[in-house]
Amino acid sequence: MTLPTATDAGLVFVGRIHTPWTSRMDTPRQGRQDGPLCRIEIFDPWVPALDGLEQYERVEVIYWLHLSRRDLVRQSPAHDGAARGTFSLRSPVRPNPLGTSVARLVGIEGATVLVRGLDCLDGTPLLDLKPDRTLFTPIAPPQPGDLQTGNP
Amino acid sequence: MTLPTATDAGLVFVGRIHTPWTSRMDTPRQGRQDGPLCRIEIFDPWVPALDGLEQYERVEVIYWLHLSRRDLVRQSPAHDGAARGTFSLRSPVRPNPLGTSVARLVGIEGATVLVRGLDCLDGTPLLDLKPDRTLFTPIAPPQPGDLQTGNP
Repeated sequence: MTLPTATDAGLVFVGRIHTPWTSRMDTPRQGRQDGPLCRIEIFDPWVPALDGLEQYERVEVIYWLHLSRRDLVRQSPAHDGAARGTFSLRSPVRPNPLGTSVARLVGIEGATVLVRGLDCLDGTPLLDLKPDRTLFTPIAPPQPGDLQTGNP
Repeated sequence: MTLPTATDAGLVFVGRIHTPWTSRMDTPRQGRQDGPLCRIEIFDPWVPALDGLEQYERVEVIYWLHLSRRDLVRQSPAHDGAARGTFSLRSPVRPNPLGTSVARLVGIEGATVLVRGLDCLDGTPLLDLKPDRTLFTPIAPPQPGDLQTGNP
């Protein structure tokens, strides 16, 4: 399909991810928690935003798959002629090439976050870091929706 | 801080999320798997990208928190004067207001995906859907990085 020429929202890169993989042909399909150490470099002025992240064992990493094409509604990952819908895959090829991983936090040294478990290319732009959802308890008080179950 | 005036990458909205919550004061802090049924509407031309998603029990939903401010490096969610770094929180206020949830897939009806477990406002723009990472096995053949452990 043809991508729209205008975009609906804009992203800012808040860091860069350094991994051992410099070619798309080497990069893992899926990160592993015992994988190589990777370094996430945080850009100014976002370094103080790391404060408090050190207490979590795992961190959700959101990044921009900057080399991916964005125009495939269906694709064939095994190149066997069997096409599947893009939303049923975790392929980097998608309308918004957003990658998400849950990485093991090894440490934070100044503006650098050390993790294991990534599967992206060296130089990948960083968009966001969050504590892993299964470890995080909201600090703000609950709201009515937190108690709501079943159909509205 | 002052946000940069230029952005580094652009997003396209591929759908819209319909939830019971029309005010930020009602919206849950955290979705629950037994929460209200929510409808994710997929825009043309992305409807065929859903093909194959129906086989997964859970789906990762990535969306754009369109009402959030983006300029806080530190914030105080409990409004108690204790500020924490933005990357140590799952607050909607972040440099790139990207929300991620893992929702329970109830069904797919044409261009509509029915799920439970969301915690976003009615009308939130959709950016991406992927099978939950813990349920997904890559279809493409493994690459050298998939076997790599420890330090590079």
